Amino acid sequence: MTNIASPKGFTANGAHVGVKKARRDLTLIASEIPAAAAGCFTRNIVKAAPVVFDEQIIKNSGKARGIVINSGNANACTGGQGMDDARAMASAFAGLLGAAAEEVFVCSTGVIGVPLPMDKIAAGIPETYKGMGNAESHGLAAVEGIMTTDTFAKTAGAAVTLGGVEVKLAGMAKGSGMIHPNMATMLAFVTTDAAISAALLQKALTDAVGVTFNMISVDGDTSTNDTILALANGMAGNPEIAGEGPDYAIFAEALRQVCESLAVDVARDGEGATKLFEVRVSGAASEDDARTIARAVTSSSLVKTAIFGADANMGRALCAMGYSGGNFDPAKVSVSFSSAAGRVEWMKDGNVASIDEDLAKRVLSEKELVIDIGLADGNFSAKAWGCDLTYEYVKINGDYRS
Amino acid sequence: MTNIASPKGFTANGAHVGVKKARRDLTLIASEIPAAAAGCFTRNIVKAAPVVFDEQIIKNSGKARGIVINSGNANACTGGQGMDDARAMASAFAGLLGAAAEEVFVCSTGVIGVPLPMDKIAAGIPETYKGMGNAESHGLAAVEGIMTTDTFAKTAGAAVTLGGVEVKLAGMAKGSGMIHPNMATMLAFVTTDAAISAALLQKALTDAVGVTFNMISVDGDTSTNDTILALANGMAGNPEIAGEGPDYAIFAEALRQVCESLAVDVARDGEGATKLFEVRVSGAASEDDARTIARAVTSSSLVKTAIFGADANMGRALCAMGYSGGNFDPAKVSVSFSSAAGRVEWMKDGNVASIDEDLAKRVLSEKELVIDIGLADGNFSAKAWGCDLTYEYVKINGDYRS
Repeated sequence: MTNIASPKGFTANGAHVGVKKARRDLTLIASEIPAAAAGCFTRNIVKAAPVVFDEQIIKNSGKARGIVINSGNANACTGGQGMDDARAMASAFAGLLGAAAEEVFVCSTGVIGVPLPMDKIAAGIPETYKGMGNAESHGLAAVEGIMTTDTFAKTAGAAVTLGGVEVKLAGMAKGSGMIHPNMATMLAFVTTDAAISAALLQKALTDAVGVTFNMISVDGDTSTNDTILALANGMAGNPEIAGEGPDYAIFAEALRQVCESLAVDVARDGEGATKLFEVRVSGAASEDDARTIARAVTSSSLVKTAIFGADANMGRALCAMGYSGGNFDPAKVSVSFSSAAGRVEWMKDGNVASIDEDLAKRVLSEKELVIDIGLADGNFSAKAWGCDLTYEYVKINGDYRS
Repeated sequence: MTNIASPKGFTANGAHVGVKKARRDLTLIASEIPAAAAGCFTRNIVKAAPVVFDEQIIKNSGKARGIVINSGNANACTGGQGMDDARAMASAFAGLLGAAAEEVFVCSTGVIGVPLPMDKIAAGIPETYKGMGNAESHGLAAVEGIMTTDTFAKTAGAAVTLGGVEVKLAGMAKGSGMIHPNMATMLAFVTTDAAISAALLQKALTDAVGVTFNMISVDGDTSTNDTILALANGMAGNPEIAGEGPDYAIFAEALRQVCESLAVDVARDGEGATKLFEVRVSGAASEDDARTIARAVTSSSLVKTAIFGADANMGRALCAMGYSGGNFDPAKVSVSFSSAAGRVEWMKDGNVASIDEDLAKRVLSEKELVIDIGLADGNFSAKAWGCDLTYEYVKINGDYRS
């Protein structure tokens, strides 16, 4: 199975160094040679120190040798000390790699407003470094090191042929809502041995994030630490992708698939979630309209509770579409929902149908559902993913620190 | 106690006519003479038939004799039949009042996508009309007739002196989330015997709604039927308010107080809610920033669950501020929370304080809480109100139709 260190020249490891009580809490990822780097970061104006640090690397050089990540503490709302600590983490790992601090990304996730236990992290980095490698066990340790309340490890991989050369992509992510003590984080990492310029890697990543990670919602809360980073070290030996030709298109599609797989897993593992649902909007007048409408339906608490209860309450989806800000004509809307148990047409050209309630209940009782929305307004479409809102979500988030 | 028919020249009644199984489901409000009328309506682009009908009255004449309201069926997504039914309801009541259909507002709340049972409503309007009056019992019947899942009746009143004359204002509202079978609705009605032009009544109402009803959130879902209507019949005999002088200011403030009281009650009665919390933002650079930030904090599922769990997880409030779209400098933020049990300073000038967790728990265990947020960025402020997110909310909305 693909792991984050599967592409040529990458190694990884994860360990317990004492930020959390017992589980793994530190992860290292390294490229043997400098890799082109791209990143997308939270749009929250309250940004954690590592986000500020990483954005500078993307802006200044677009090159990196590695990534150091801790879970259990978000290093957010920690002022000047937080920036010093982020830099110290980068320096400690960079020293071992023979690189500069500006070549190592830093990510943190966990409780906010509490300074990092830097003694434990500083001691843990060299120990964790010693065990780095590219076996499946290394990849598993690496993904475990970034998990907080995740109930399963989220990894994805792809392989494509570029210029006659096989190129690998590997990804891992964490996140199941903004759940950790104060708020948690969506973190995702992609490595590839493809040769591609930093600018095109950034373009491919930004485009992929727009239709994957930016189209999932667990609870509508955008974290202070959200980060996705991609490293491309070129060691596969393909002719460097330096323009938007066929190779770029193939690579970008593979990257999109890796991101979609990770993003859907994050939605599936939403706190307390028992069901994953996909909303497909077609016939929109613009891409923005399609995305806005799809996201609004996945984010509605009323839609999410109806899905939890297997209640065919699709008026709530129409209501969410209506307040989303996306444009459409209610008189032209068609809505159906489906799963492995069948399909139910709820609305056709703006008219509500009389539905088979028994079938609807069976369809909505499955673990994976699709809501199809046709707008008959144009040629644009979008997909978004959400999870149900359950008692368990309230319990997890109401009781966490108690 | 003030009821919706307390101002001079108003009468009201509520009855059970068979839209719902057993509870009151029809309400009539009338003014003896034509009243200046103002309204604010849902911004959802999926609008129920009565909303479309009422918007025309405001646009065309700004005058009305009465309001007919049914609960149990929202008359939404009902196509041309829905518009015919809304007009038929207005006509039936207007005929009894000796008025035109264009002088009677119509409101509906309840299940969507199902045609109104017009036989029952048509038979019920004359019956209900016979019992109209202005006693407290009439007002109580009227507010009961608009309730869906509300757990208590929401009324408010005010009296002010304008030009030496006592003027009364009365209000009633329904709403505890978008809960009814498919989606429910926030409906509110204000009557006053003040003499005021329709244009200034509209201005006062729009301004009041902006800082009251538009600043509450139960679940972030904006209904297709939301409506607030105000009728001013001038029968108190005050000199007509025709300009924005001192009388206008006094009247507008009284109207704002009535709206605030009703709006806060709607938030307090949010589905499944056990606690009401008020978010006060001060020191904002603009009014928009203040409102946007305050609303984001009241709307965050994570803040709402933390309050349910009495968990001093204020990083979630800061996170919601950060993604709200409102502008502020995180380094200048101060946050405290308080209740009858005391006050806790969580953040001062961007730095998180070490808090007394026992005190925090006691403070957050009260039924009414305040979160104070200082931005030190300017002179604008705003208040918003929300309720906690509980198991019961999930139960109500997941199981409703089952």
